[in-house]
Amino acid sequence: MRILSTELPQHVGNQIMISGWVHSIRQLGHLAFVHLRDRSGIVQIVLEGELATLALTPESVITVHGQVVQSKYGAELHGTQVEVLSPAQAPLPIEVNKKEIPASLDTILNHRALALRNPKVHATFTIQSVLAGAFRDFFSARGFTQIFTPKIVASGTEGGSNLFAIQYFEKQAYLAQSPQFYKQMMVGAGYERVFEIAPVYRAEEHNTSRHLNEYTSLDVEMGFIRSFEELMDLETELLQYLFHRVAETCPEELALLGAEVPVIEQIPRLTVQQAQQILLEQYSKTSPEGDLDPEGERLICQYYADQGKPALVFLTHYPREVRPMYAMPAPDHPALTASFDLLFNGLEITTGGQRIHRLEMLEESMRSRSLNLEAFADYLNLFRYGMPPHGGFAIGLERLTARLLGHNNVREATAFPRDRNRLTP
Amino acid sequence: MRILSTELPQHVGNQIMISGWVHSIRQLGHLAFVHLRDRSGIVQIVLEGELATLALTPESVITVHGQVVQSKYGAELHGTQVEVLSPAQAPLPIEVNKKEIPASLDTILNHRALALRNPKVHATFTIQSVLAGAFRDFFSARGFTQIFTPKIVASGTEGGSNLFAIQYFEKQAYLAQSPQFYKQMMVGAGYERVFEIAPVYRAEEHNTSRHLNEYTSLDVEMGFIRSFEELMDLETELLQYLFHRVAETCPEELALLGAEVPVIEQIPRLTVQQAQQILLEQYSKTSPEGDLDPEGERLICQYYADQGKPALVFLTHYPREVRPMYAMPAPDHPALTASFDLLFNGLEITTGGQRIHRLEMLEESMRSRSLNLEAFADYLNLFRYGMPPHGGFAIGLERLTARLLGHNNVREATAFPRDRNRLTP
Repeated sequence: MRILSTELPQHVGNQIMISGWVHSIRQLGHLAFVHLRDRSGIVQIVLEGELATLALTPESVITVHGQVVQSKYGAELHGTQVEVLSPAQAPLPIEVNKKEIPASLDTILNHRALALRNPKVHATFTIQSVLAGAFRDFFSARGFTQIFTPKIVASGTEGGSNLFAIQYFEKQAYLAQSPQFYKQMMVGAGYERVFEIAPVYRAEEHNTSRHLNEYTSLDVEMGFIRSFEELMDLETELLQYLFHRVAETCPEELALLGAEVPVIEQIPRLTVQQAQQILLEQYSKTSPEGDLDPEGERLICQYYADQGKPALVFLTHYPREVRPMYAMPAPDHPALTASFDLLFNGLEITTGGQRIHRLEMLEESMRSRSLNLEAFADYLNLFRYGMPPHGGFAIGLERLTARLLGHNNVREATAFPRDRNRLTP
Repeated sequence: MRILSTELPQHVGNQIMISGWVHSIRQLGHLAFVHLRDRSGIVQIVLEGELATLALTPESVITVHGQVVQSKYGAELHGTQVEVLSPAQAPLPIEVNKKEIPASLDTILNHRALALRNPKVHATFTIQSVLAGAFRDFFSARGFTQIFTPKIVASGTEGGSNLFAIQYFEKQAYLAQSPQFYKQMMVGAGYERVFEIAPVYRAEEHNTSRHLNEYTSLDVEMGFIRSFEELMDLETELLQYLFHRVAETCPEELALLGAEVPVIEQIPRLTVQQAQQILLEQYSKTSPEGDLDPEGERLICQYYADQGKPALVFLTHYPREVRPMYAMPAPDHPALTASFDLLFNGLEITTGGQRIHRLEMLEESMRSRSLNLEAFADYLNLFRYGMPPHGGFAIGLERLTARLLGHNNVREATAFPRDRNRLTP
C-alpha cells in the first residue's frame, strides 16, 4: 500500500512504498539523492549502487519501495526498488522546481498544468478549495440551501451589455453574468436563504490584472432582512470564519506564499461620500461622481492599513444611477441605495445590497432606465405573488483568493484563466 | 426577533413574531385560521375580531405578532397584529397549495418560482442541496481538492459533436461538455485527487425525460490508482455515504415524496456482455453491439429489484469503440476498456473508468479515431512530463436526485431546466 511523504516518520524501520513526481536529483558518486513530491509534500530518497545510476528525469512519475530510516534531517527512504510509471521528457519547458518559476506569468499560464506543480503556485489552489468549502459550511450551518441555476439564459440581468451570445438551437441565448434573478427566485420560492457557487461570464473588453471573462461567483441571497446592514454583518462573520479556517487548515501553504491572514473584528463602513471626503483630505484625491476609481479603492484601503488595521472597508449608499435597477433605495435617501461594496487590499471583492421587493417600485425603477418591461416578464412575475424583503451579495472567488494571498494579478488565483486574449489551455 | 414555525413549541406562553407565506385561509364567522409557511414548515395562526376580517390572499407574505398557545393539535399562534409585507395577486396561476399541483409539468415549469413553493416540489431541492454538500464532505475528508475549471473552451473533449458554439471576442469557442481534460490536468498538476461541482453543456437534439442540455456534473478524478475496480469501490462508498446523509438529514422531505433511500451493501458488477446475456435469457431482450439500450438499462435494474435488492448495477468492460479515446484498454482484453457505467433505477447516472496515461498509447488511440492531434496539443502536453495512472467518474446531480426520489422526468429534479425547447424562466 502506498503511503504519503508526510506519513514517513510514522514508518521508521519499516518497508514501505511511495509514489510521486521526481522533484530533483543529485548524484554523488555511488549515491543518488532524489526528492520525491506527492500531494502531501516532499521527501528525500537515497539510492545506492545500480539504482543510483538510473537515468531519472525531473518530473517523471515513479514508485519507490524501500526502508524508512531516521536521518538527522528527518525520516528518509532508502530505496530498494524503483519503478518509472511515466517518464518525463527533458528539458522541461519551464523550471517548476525552483522556488519561483523563472518565467513570465504568460509563459506560466501557457504551461499551466506543469506550472501548478511548483509548490508555491500549487498552494494557492489548495487554499482556494478550502475557501470554497468553508463558504459552504458557513451557510449550511445557518439554514441556507445550495442552489444550481442555469448559466444559459434568455436575457441579461440588466438588459444587455457585456453578454456572451450563444446560439441555443433556433434561439438566441446568453451566458449568465450573475445568478441574480435566479437567486432572488429561489428566495421567493420559499427557500428564503440560498447560496450558489458557480461560474459567471462577463464579455468585458478590459484586459487588466483585475478582470476575468469567466470567474467563480460565491453568491448569497437572504429573505426577511430588516435592513442592508444585516447583510454586512453576515459578510463580516463569513470572512471571519473563512479566514480562520484558512489559517487553521493551511499554515504551510500560507508560509510558502508569505501570506498573513488578517484577523477581523469589525469592518469599517463608510458612505461613498465619506470615503471621497477622506481621499480628498488625506491624499488630495478627487473621485468620480458617486463612486471611487481603482486608485481611490487602493488608497482608501491604504488609509486603514496605515493605521495598522486590516485593509478592509465597506462602502455604502451608492447613488441609484451607478447601481442596478433592482437596488433598493436607501431609507431617508431616495437618490441613494441600500447597497454596499466590500474592498479588500485595494480591490472590490463584493457587491451587495437590499433589493426592491415591491412590484410597483421595481416597474417604476425599470421605466426610469427605459428598460423594456416585457423582456423581464418572468422576473417581474416573481413579485406578483408574495416576495419578502430580501438582499444578498456576491464574492468573486478568484479575487478573494488573490487579495488574501497577496497576488497582484487575479490570474494567479485562477487555475485556467479566460481573459480578453486567453482561451487556452 | 423572528422565530421559525418549527420553533413555536419552544415558545408556548410567549409573545413572538413569525413571518412567511399565507399557505391557506379558512374563515369561520369571527375567527380566521391561517396556515403560515416559512422555510422550516407550516404553522396555524388563529385570528379573531377585526384581524379575522383582513382581506388576506393566498401566498401573500405577512408578519404576525402574537402569543403561542398549546392546542390539542400542537403549538399555534394567536395573532394580535398582522402586517402584509407583500400582497399576492389573486387568483394564482397555479394552485401551489394543493398536495399535488393540478397542472402539467410544462405549466409547472413555466411558473417555476411559484411551483417550488409547493412543499412536495420544494422537498426535492432541499435534498439536492444535501446531496451536493455530502458529495463535497465525502471527498474533502479523503484528501481531494475542489477545483474550478473553465466552461468556455477552445475545443471539445472528443473533437466536436454536441457542442454549443460561442463567439469569444474574435475567436470561436465552445461550452464545455465535461471538465474531463481539466480534471486530468489537475491530477497531473500534482493535486492527485480532485473533484468539481459545476455545470456542463450538451447541445443534444434529444428531448426525452432523461436529457437536459445543461446540467450539474459531480466530477471526480484520482491519480495513482492500480485498477478501475478501485473507482467502483470509491463510488460505492460515496453512494453509501450520500444516501445515509439524505436519510438522516431529510426524513420529512423523503416522507412527503414517498421516497425510500436504498441501503447499499455491495453494488453488483457485470460486464456488458454478462448483462446482455441476462437480458436475453430472462427477458428475451436483444441489445445493440457492446452496449445496452434504454429498455435494457431499465430491465437489468428490474432484474435486481425483482430479487428484493437495490436497483443499482455497475456495467463494465465497454468496447473501445463506444468509449472515448482516453479510455484505458482493459487488462487482458485490448478491445475492451477498463471503464464502467452505473445504472440506478433503470437509468445511467455515472460514466467512469481508468484513463490512458502513456503518451504513445494516447496518440495511437487518437489516430485510430482519425482525430487531429494538433487540436489536442495542450492535452497531449500533459502526458509528456510525468502523468500517474489515474481515473475517475462523473455523476449527473439531477439524474441522481431524480432516481433517488422517484421522479420519472429529470426536469422534476432541475430547478430551472434547459432542454431542446425550454430556455425560460
